[in-house]
Amino acid sequence: MGAGTVVSKYSIGVDFGTLSGRAVLVNVSSGAEVAESVYEYSHGSMDETLPDGTKLPPDFALQDPADYIRTLEKTVPEVIASAGIDPNDVIGLGIDFTACTILPVDESGLPLCYRSDLASNPHAWVKLWKHHAAQDEANQLNAIAESRGEQFLSRYGGKISSEWFFPKVWQVLDEAPDVYEQTDRFVEAADWVIMQLTGQERRNSCTAGYKAMWSKQEGYPSKEFFRALDPRLENVVEEKMSTDIYPQGAKAGTLTEAMAKKLGLSPMVAVAVANVDAHVSVPAATITEPGKILAIMGTSTCHCLISDQQMKVEGMCGVVEDGILPGYYGYEAGQAAVGDIFAWFVDSYVSPHYHDEAKKRGLSIHQLLEKKASALRPGESGLLALDWWNGNRSTLVDADLSGLLLGMNLTTKPEEIYRALIEATAFGTRTIIEAFRDSGVPVNEFYACGGLPEKNALLMQIYADVIDMEIKVSYSSQTPALGAAMFGAVAAGEEAGGYSSITEAAKRMARLKDTTFKPVPENVLVYDRIYAEYKKLYDYFGRGENNVMKRLREIRSQVR
Amino acid sequence: MGAGTVVSKYSIGVDFGTLSGRAVLVNVSSGAEVAESVYEYSHGSMDETLPDGTKLPPDFALQDPADYIRTLEKTVPEVIASAGIDPNDVIGLGIDFTACTILPVDESGLPLCYRSDLASNPHAWVKLWKHHAAQDEANQLNAIAESRGEQFLSRYGGKISSEWFFPKVWQVLDEAPDVYEQTDRFVEAADWVIMQLTGQERRNSCTAGYKAMWSKQEGYPSKEFFRALDPRLENVVEEKMSTDIYPQGAKAGTLTEAMAKKLGLSPMVAVAVANVDAHVSVPAATITEPGKILAIMGTSTCHCLISDQQMKVEGMCGVVEDGILPGYYGYEAGQAAVGDIFAWFVDSYVSPHYHDEAKKRGLSIHQLLEKKASALRPGESGLLALDWWNGNRSTLVDADLSGLLLGMNLTTKPEEIYRALIEATAFGTRTIIEAFRDSGVPVNEFYACGGLPEKNALLMQIYADVIDMEIKVSYSSQTPALGAAMFGAVAAGEEAGGYSSITEAAKRMARLKDTTFKPVPENVLVYDRIYAEYKKLYDYFGRGENNVMKRLREIRSQVR
Repeated sequence: MGAGTVVSKYSIGVDFGTLSGRAVLVNVSSGAEVAESVYEYSHGSMDETLPDGTKLPPDFALQDPADYIRTLEKTVPEVIASAGIDPNDVIGLGIDFTACTILPVDESGLPLCYRSDLASNPHAWVKLWKHHAAQDEANQLNAIAESRGEQFLSRYGGKISSEWFFPKVWQVLDEAPDVYEQTDRFVEAADWVIMQLTGQERRNSCTAGYKAMWSKQEGYPSKEFFRALDPRLENVVEEKMSTDIYPQGAKAGTLTEAMAKKLGLSPMVAVAVANVDAHVSVPAATITEPGKILAIMGTSTCHCLISDQQMKVEGMCGVVEDGILPGYYGYEAGQAAVGDIFAWFVDSYVSPHYHDEAKKRGLSIHQLLEKKASALRPGESGLLALDWWNGNRSTLVDADLSGLLLGMNLTTKPEEIYRALIEATAFGTRTIIEAFRDSGVPVNEFYACGGLPEKNALLMQIYADVIDMEIKVSYSSQTPALGAAMFGAVAAGEEAGGYSSITEAAKRMARLKDTTFKPVPENVLVYDRIYAEYKKLYDYFGRGENNVMKRLREIRSQVR
Repeated sequence: MGAGTVVSKYSIGVDFGTLSGRAVLVNVSSGAEVAESVYEYSHGSMDETLPDGTKLPPDFALQDPADYIRTLEKTVPEVIASAGIDPNDVIGLGIDFTACTILPVDESGLPLCYRSDLASNPHAWVKLWKHHAAQDEANQLNAIAESRGEQFLSRYGGKISSEWFFPKVWQVLDEAPDVYEQTDRFVEAADWVIMQLTGQERRNSCTAGYKAMWSKQEGYPSKEFFRALDPRLENVVEEKMSTDIYPQGAKAGTLTEAMAKKLGLSPMVAVAVANVDAHVSVPAATITEPGKILAIMGTSTCHCLISDQQMKVEGMCGVVEDGILPGYYGYEAGQAAVGDIFAWFVDSYVSPHYHDEAKKRGLSIHQLLEKKASALRPGESGLLALDWWNGNRSTLVDADLSGLLLGMNLTTKPEEIYRALIEATAFGTRTIIEAFRDSGVPVNEFYACGGLPEKNALLMQIYADVIDMEIKVSYSSQTPALGAAMFGAVAAGEEAGGYSSITEAAKRMARLKDTTFKPVPENVLVYDRIYAEYKKLYDYFGRGENNVMKRLREIRSQVR
């Protein structure tokens, strides 16, 4: 393969986000990101109207699959042109996607929303991950699964999210039975894009496992379970899905002639099975073995950990065999709000006085608060928060919990609250690490990627001090796209100048920043004491001893 | 007396505040406030330096007694001049003061700070109520009193404040034994001013009872107790105080010739014994009988209630016979921060966006928040706070508690927090009312005066809904000064055109605003449910089940 050869080979990773898609052209030998191109979806995330003006009900969030194709058509030729390389040196292509983002297609794979008779029906379009209108179906599904003692629940922290596959499919059946009827199958947008690229439908185990309740050992839930949901769903798996599922790292095929032409690539380019944005980042952050956890930190945080054992871990989002790396169990955990909490505070709770100071010092208000908060010692503010502004995903799996801030006095300053909010999210991460360890899943090293580690050094130091682990940060600021390109290089294989495995790819293409965040022993000691207080409140408010947050929410829903 | 006579008689009330003194000239027949004059103290509250530049230690807050005399000299002639009345028609004068505000004087009553050899010694000056440098002495005093099982503690909610008489006196002995030595006696500034007016030292039962641990039945604490504090304090009462104490409503004397001349009044003017700002407001808010509670609501809130029984009530600041009205037990309770909490939030936690909106709408930021918060229904925000930003005075008597806010999510708005903070202080008031009732002291009617009832109608409505009582508001916006003038009219007596008792004075001189705040039944029901949650958290965090606030404070003091 590459390192010793004269001609460089390249792989392309395409990261399909919520509002845009981004291609990165990566040198297969070195992992260097040579060129990058972004396409803003022309229809973005549709939450008010369809392109033809049809109004959408509340909590809908839809997309237009044509935006995905336009992303490929614009960004792939652009990265090749701007890098000035020979397109024949591109050997592989991989993609990662938001999930669970699904659409109904006909027998030929055509999205139903492309059909003129269905274009005005919201249920014919792509349901984006953050479509939250299937909550009723999710609630029913959870209640029935629990009453039946369904084993699969234990792989998902005891609860299926309304964002996932079956609640969304069930909603179509409930609200648009004609669309359901005309659907040949429901497919993850990620897999649909792969189908468009290769002409083959090869579903990925990551979305199947984390979002569609599938497991390599047990398959999908039983017919009896689906019948209990709705008799019409009894055969949903056979009738409306494909059961042809491939592990992460597998090759989906090569580009079709037509697609190769459109993208300006060779039809020999190998395409990897699709991936999910968080999970694909794991090898791109150099992780290829058990015991190393990756936190993808942004508005919310997703934690991915691989292990050679399948254990029951409290409050995980899911554990899936081959779901992150082939041959391993991949665990996913999450914090429902992280950067979102800081943004909530910074956007609405900082006075003009601070804004003026930031302007004078040439800082953003986030930067000013970070500077001021950095001058504080752990424990100095006397504050403590529970980071439940968007509920608690892991380890409590409870969306009805809410935020708490404690310890204020008349001299409490905004930077103290800002710091307490950061600390709370760090404590939240520590509860997740401890849940893994308590269940016998080792967590020996901590890695981070995403927007926050790039922007907020104070936050990273606090995390290191709170979890008492050194934190390594992914070098790439486009870690998901890099990961997708790495899987593309694996799909291409060693003979084509790629790699025989994702582990080999990671050795050459993935790297970390030189700077790491090391725990400061005296801070660790203080945070140990404060974490003990956090844990006590976590249990008190989160495990039923005082359900005040739920009762306030109930009162709230009654008076509104 | 007055009502039927042709010539109106007048009384003057002088309210000595923290930064200024204010005289109000009141028509004795009608209670009409005819004229008003304010003097800003030239030395205000000294917390950094003495007038000669001497630096002060931390937590000191001193005053210059000359400022009190200047207040009289400026404001009394001014109200007479501006009202254009015959000075001979002024029949009485009363004063009210901050407390505990004390100074050391020599045998003639001369403040030691007037002596050139002591003028640079901070301990020779007036220690203002908010002088907080005697905390060590207060802590020791409480520990010793508790270990000795001193009965007097039960009259003060189990704890003596560092703001009170003996901690302050003990601090002088500790830190400036020479000043202590040269002190003939320590005297409340209120009583010292009365001495300057009348030439007679007649101490008032209000400050003696609430601040100097005196009771009509039991007198001062025992010599044994004082010896246990410090052998040099054994005879502090005999050596450094006067035990000549008069009930509220008594006459202290008439103006000295010299003082009458200075003030432009007749030497026949009767002067009442001094009073305290909160307590003096009770009859001025029309209250002259048991079962009616007055809340003096401002940066903090003070509650005064009279009763014909002396009961042990949890967490009261004090219960004093004759301490508010002669012939009754006067109870005082308090909330250590009320308006201060709102100011904390409004000053530092409201974004430029809201400030711009307020400006556009021609509102103060407080008014904008009040408007926005008024549009919310009880329970709608899902928020709940514990109003302990400055600890909890009543009923927990615990300065080490701190604030709590719970129920936040990513859409929580500033007006929701603002409203939750108001609600929390209302819940705090309800705990105080319930503590009285639980101890067998009836609370049948609720009255309010002070800055907040004048400014914030939403707050008053929330209080009415939370306590499920109609709230009546004192008519005067200078309720303490009016009260002082009423006591002046009582000191003058019926024959001089005044009144035979404070009850009679209140009938004619005191009144309420026409508008009251009535509980809205549906709000009462919702607040009952939220109060149950408040109470549960109050007990959990306030009564030792989870001392997280104290432990965070301990960590804080260790890392600083």
